[in-house]
Amino acid sequence: MPLKKVYGVGVGPGDRELITLKALRVLKEVNKVFVPISKLGRRSLAYEIIKDFIKDKHIEELLFPMVKDKNKLKSYWDEALRKILKEDGEVAIVTIGDPTLYSTFSYLWKLLKENGVEVEVINGVSSIFASAKALNMPLVEGDEKLCILPQGKDLYKYIDEFDTIIVMKTKNLKECLKDIMNRDDILIGLVKKASFNDEKVFFGKIKDAKFEEFNDYLSMAIIKKVKE
Amino acid sequence: MPLKKVYGVGVGPGDRELITLKALRVLKEVNKVFVPISKLGRRSLAYEIIKDFIKDKHIEELLFPMVKDKNKLKSYWDEALRKILKEDGEVAIVTIGDPTLYSTFSYLWKLLKENGVEVEVINGVSSIFASAKALNMPLVEGDEKLCILPQGKDLYKYIDEFDTIIVMKTKNLKECLKDIMNRDDILIGLVKKASFNDEKVFFGKIKDAKFEEFNDYLSMAIIKKVKE
Repeated sequence: MPLKKVYGVGVGPGDRELITLKALRVLKEVNKVFVPISKLGRRSLAYEIIKDFIKDKHIEELLFPMVKDKNKLKSYWDEALRKILKEDGEVAIVTIGDPTLYSTFSYLWKLLKENGVEVEVINGVSSIFASAKALNMPLVEGDEKLCILPQGKDLYKYIDEFDTIIVMKTKNLKECLKDIMNRDDILIGLVKKASFNDEKVFFGKIKDAKFEEFNDYLSMAIIKKVKE
Repeated sequence: MPLKKVYGVGVGPGDRELITLKALRVLKEVNKVFVPISKLGRRSLAYEIIKDFIKDKHIEELLFPMVKDKNKLKSYWDEALRKILKEDGEVAIVTIGDPTLYSTFSYLWKLLKENGVEVEVINGVSSIFASAKALNMPLVEGDEKLCILPQGKDLYKYIDEFDTIIVMKTKNLKECLKDIMNRDDILIGLVKKASFNDEKVFFGKIKDAKFEEFNDYLSMAIIKKVKE
């Protein structure tokens, strides 16, 4: 039986209980579960979330290092694709959060579709919502406008126009937020590892933030204008 | 025993299997589950999602009609608050999607906090991700910028700057998108009732879209610039 279907399974932001019934069912039914790792020997966060649910399941790692060189990166995608195309029946690739929002899965999704493979995404709870929950406040309500600016791209342009801005996908939030460092009319929430046991939170004026405590890829900033 | 804690529980976008283990546990443990309805006699979508999981549970409706008058609206919030404050121990209020993103729950959240009640949000899968899944494409990848503009507010300003724009919270997408009706360089995805059994999808040029099929509050538009 050749490869029939690939599931891209979102396993939620970190808290194991935030996995959906559908993700669990699919992970139990497939022949193999692929887990992404960023470095050989490093544990996969997505795997940590699911491991107790799928004991005795065939697991295989896919290496996606955080390199900027597009050709180098492409060689890793191609290698992952080769591994997946060798499988039989249905397999799953897990991803932290949701597979449609800045997920490493999106590149594989495209490659698999180009190769005529059926792909089904299983949505998951995103870390942007887990971060708002950690800050004990809504992300947006009513007719408020929200934007997500990876690495704070063009932050200076949008800070006065959007009610809520999310900056994520960076190890250096302080550098990304430098344009608004002196603003007294905004409040900033910083969240590291939202929903994990060792979650860390700051909420207040940007000048009081200890950025050095929020300096990994699982940190994000939620920026809000102070309303009159 | 007085009221101890209120859970704001996101039950996901519509597909029952997209509920989380945590939402299920909390709904089973609480003394009562409040379900929001927009009109007396109308069934609650959130209730439809959970009803088979929580048979024999005390259920009570909270009426939140879709009225624009802020004073009128406030009287409904206050009435809901009164009902909740009468309860003992722990109760839950369910909401479709995630409680931090344009949720009716956010107003109650604020009122409950003001009244010194402990609130805990249980995150859920959002319909924005279920819509991207329905369109079989990522919402954003790499360093792409995303914004959510309720009712298409200021769409003309952002259409050339953001990679993906979501327009939601309207019954009239056509009217909200009128500024971009003649644009040939964008593709538009329309999704109604993402993840429900009767989900409906369109993807293509805006001039080909049959907007009359996407005219309720559970419809949204995902707008993407065509990349060269």
